[in-house]
Amino acid sequence: MSVRAGIIVTGTEVLSGLIRDANGPWLSEQLRAHGVSLREIVVVGDRPEDLRRALDFFSDVDLVLTSGGLGPTADDLTAEVVAGWAGTRMELDPALEERIWAIVNTLRRRIGGEEAPMRAGARKQAHVPVGAVVLEPRGTAPGFLIGSAPLVAVLPGPPRELQAMWGDAVSTEPLRSLLASAGSLEQRILRFFPLSEPQIAATLRELDADSRPLEITTCLRRGELELATVYEEPAAAAYADFEAEIRARHGDALFSDSGATIDEVIAQLLSGLTIATAESCTGGLMAGRLTDLAGSSAYVLGGVVVYSNEAKTALAGVDAGLIAAHGAVSPEVASALSAGARERFGADLGIGITGIAGPGGGTPEKPVGTVCLSIAAPWGVEERTVRLPGSRTDVRDRTTTVALHMLRALILRR
Amino acid sequence: MSVRAGIIVTGTEVLSGLIRDANGPWLSEQLRAHGVSLREIVVVGDRPEDLRRALDFFSDVDLVLTSGGLGPTADDLTAEVVAGWAGTRMELDPALEERIWAIVNTLRRRIGGEEAPMRAGARKQAHVPVGAVVLEPRGTAPGFLIGSAPLVAVLPGPPRELQAMWGDAVSTEPLRSLLASAGSLEQRILRFFPLSEPQIAATLRELDADSRPLEITTCLRRGELELATVYEEPAAAAYADFEAEIRARHGDALFSDSGATIDEVIAQLLSGLTIATAESCTGGLMAGRLTDLAGSSAYVLGGVVVYSNEAKTALAGVDAGLIAAHGAVSPEVASALSAGARERFGADLGIGITGIAGPGGGTPEKPVGTVCLSIAAPWGVEERTVRLPGSRTDVRDRTTTVALHMLRALILRR
Repeated sequence: MSVRAGIIVTGTEVLSGLIRDANGPWLSEQLRAHGVSLREIVVVGDRPEDLRRALDFFSDVDLVLTSGGLGPTADDLTAEVVAGWAGTRMELDPALEERIWAIVNTLRRRIGGEEAPMRAGARKQAHVPVGAVVLEPRGTAPGFLIGSAPLVAVLPGPPRELQAMWGDAVSTEPLRSLLASAGSLEQRILRFFPLSEPQIAATLRELDADSRPLEITTCLRRGELELATVYEEPAAAAYADFEAEIRARHGDALFSDSGATIDEVIAQLLSGLTIATAESCTGGLMAGRLTDLAGSSAYVLGGVVVYSNEAKTALAGVDAGLIAAHGAVSPEVASALSAGARERFGADLGIGITGIAGPGGGTPEKPVGTVCLSIAAPWGVEERTVRLPGSRTDVRDRTTTVALHMLRALILRR
Repeated sequence: MSVRAGIIVTGTEVLSGLIRDANGPWLSEQLRAHGVSLREIVVVGDRPEDLRRALDFFSDVDLVLTSGGLGPTADDLTAEVVAGWAGTRMELDPALEERIWAIVNTLRRRIGGEEAPMRAGARKQAHVPVGAVVLEPRGTAPGFLIGSAPLVAVLPGPPRELQAMWGDAVSTEPLRSLLASAGSLEQRILRFFPLSEPQIAATLRELDADSRPLEITTCLRRGELELATVYEEPAAAAYADFEAEIRARHGDALFSDSGATIDEVIAQLLSGLTIATAESCTGGLMAGRLTDLAGSSAYVLGGVVVYSNEAKTALAGVDAGLIAAHGAVSPEVASALSAGARERFGADLGIGITGIAGPGGGTPEKPVGTVCLSIAAPWGVEERTVRLPGSRTDVRDRTTTVALHMLRALILRR
C-alpha cells in the first residue's frame, strides 16, 4: 500500500526568509526511509486561516507532519488550530504543566526572568487536544498525534527537539501502524565531478530515461552533479541496467555511489595519512571543512590562514621575492603554500590556496573568481588555476570543493 | 491596495531534502521589499499533477512566482504545465533557440558532449507559452510572465540565475504595474544576545503585544534571539512605542537595531584595528567567519588552526608544560592561544579557542560542548568557558557566535 504525506512548516520567520527551514528536508528524508511518498511541503506564517488552508490542502493524504508554533508566545498557535481542524478542543493537562514548569523554572533560575509571565507561558504550552497522543517535551514544548485520515503529527520547530521527538512519535501506536502499511522506496545517489547539467541531460535523453519505472532527479550541489533515483522494489533490475549505462558513459567523473559525500570519501582516503592547510582567500573554510567530520583530529594536524603577505612569509614560509615576482595570487605562491603547510606541520599532505574571492581585487588578467590551488604529497602534486563564478561566498565554498577533488585525485595516484 | 503572492518551488531534489531551497527565502525578502504580502511557499516535486495542484492552491492570489524546472531534461516541466494552467500552449521560438544554442555550444566546446542531444535540449528550452513575456536566459533557460489574476512569473532554479532574472522581471510591464499597486510594508529587526525565548515570550505577554497592529515574530538563530516586526505605514507610531518598551526591558542584550548581523557589527567595530585567531575545535571556522565579509582583509591578518598539541606549541607558542598541567581544553590554554595569535601575527586583537566539539572526547569534568574562549587586546581580555548544546556542527558554529559577542564586549570596553 502506498502512504502519502504532506509537511507543513509553520513560522513567519521561515516564510519571511529570516531563517532557512531545516525541518522540511529532514522530515522528507525520514519519510522516504519509511517508504512514505511525500507530496508537498507547505511553508505558512503564524496566521490561523493560513494554517487551516494548508491543512485543507492535505485533506486527502494519509499523514500530515507539522513543525513549529508550539512555543510559549501568542503567535505560537499550531496546536490550537490543528485541534480545531481535527474537530476537538484544547484542554489543560495539569501534570504536564508541572513537568514543563520544572524545565522552564530551571532555565529561569539560570538566566533570570519574572516568574508569573513565564509560568503563564508554561501553562499555555501544557494545553493539548482532547483525545491526542501526547509526546513529551524535548525542549519545553510537548507535541502530539491526533486524528486519522489524515493522521496529524504536531512537532516542535527547533531542529534538535523535532528530531528527538520524531523518534518518540514513530514508536507510538497510530504512527507505527501507519508506517508499517507503507511499501518500500529505494533511493540511490550517484555523484559526479566534473559533469555539467547539459551533459547529463543529453545522456538521460539518449537513454530514454523518462520511459523507465524510475524517478530520476539531477541537481548541482556545491559544484558537483548529483543523480538521485527513487524506485519501488520491483524496479530494482531496471535501476541496475540504468546505473550500468550511466557508469559506461560517465564512470570517469563518478566519485561516489554509496551516498558518501566528497568529504566522507576524503576522510576514508586519508586513513594513515596526515594533512595540513595554508590558505588565503578561503580564510579558514578549507581547514573548517576538513575538520567538520568527527574523527578528523586523527588526520588533520592544522592549518594557517595567511591573509596578509607578511603572514604568508612568516607563517607558511613563502619567499617574499616569489610574491613580489608573481603576485600573491599565482601558481608559484600556491605551490609555496602547500609546501609550507607540509613543512610547518610535518604533514604528509599539504593544501595551498590563494585567490581572489571578490567582490573587489580583480584585474583583467586575474579577475574575481581566479583561484590557484596546489596539493602536495611526497609522491607528487596536483596544481590548478580555476576561474569560479558567483559571489564571494560561492567562490570560497566552490574552492574547497575543487580542492577536495584534487586531493582525491592525488591520493588515488599514490 | 494589498497585493498577495504565493511562491512555488519546484524540484524533486528540493522536496526530497537532497538540496536546501535558497530561492523561497530570497524571493520572500524581495516581495516584502516591494510591499507584497506572501501567503505561502509550496515545495513540489517534478510531477505535473502536483504542480497543477499548487497553482490551484494559489488561484486567488495576485502573483505567483515559480522557481525551477526550466532545464533541458525531461523532468523539467514547469513551463509546459504553467502554460496549460494559464490556458495557452507552448511554441518554439527559433531565434531564442539559436541564442540558447550559442550558450550551450560554447559550454560543449569547453567540456565536451555530443552535439545532437545537447541541441535537442536547447530546442526544448526554447519553447515558450504563446502570449508570454519572455525573460532572456541568465544561464541556459529563459523564464517568462504569463496570465493575470494571478500573474505567474516563471523563473529558473539556480539561485544566481533566478536572482538576475528577477531583476529583469520587475522591469517588465505586467510585473512593474502590479508591484506599483502594492502598499508599503515596513520591517524592523532587533537582535539580542543573550536572551532566551521564554524571557521574550514573557515580555511580549506583559506588553500585550498580540493586541497591537504589528506582526511580531521571534526566532532563535545561531544562538541569538531575533525579534522581527512587520507593519503597514499607519502603524509606525505603534511600532515606535513597542520598540521603546522592549528597549527598556532588554536594552542590555540588544546588539543590533539596524538589520546588521553580529558579523557586520564586528566589521564596523574593527575599523582601525587588526585581528588574528588561534583555534582548535572550530578548526578554521572562526577565521572563515571573520573573512566572510568583503573588505575583511583590511583587519584580518590571519590565523592558525592548531588541532594537535604539537601545533599548538609550534605555531601558537603555547607552552607544552601548560598543556600537560591543565589539558589542551582549559582556560589557561585558551589564554595562551589568544596571546599567541596576537604575537605571531602582530595583531591588536587575538582570539583563542579550544574545546570539545564531540561527538567523542568528552569527560565528566569536561563534557562534549565544553569550550574555553579568550579574546585579548592591549587594554584587557574577555575570557569564558561555556557548555554548548547540540551536535558537533552546532557546537562549532555556536562557539563562533559566542566569540563574536565577547569580541564586541571587549572592543566596547576600550
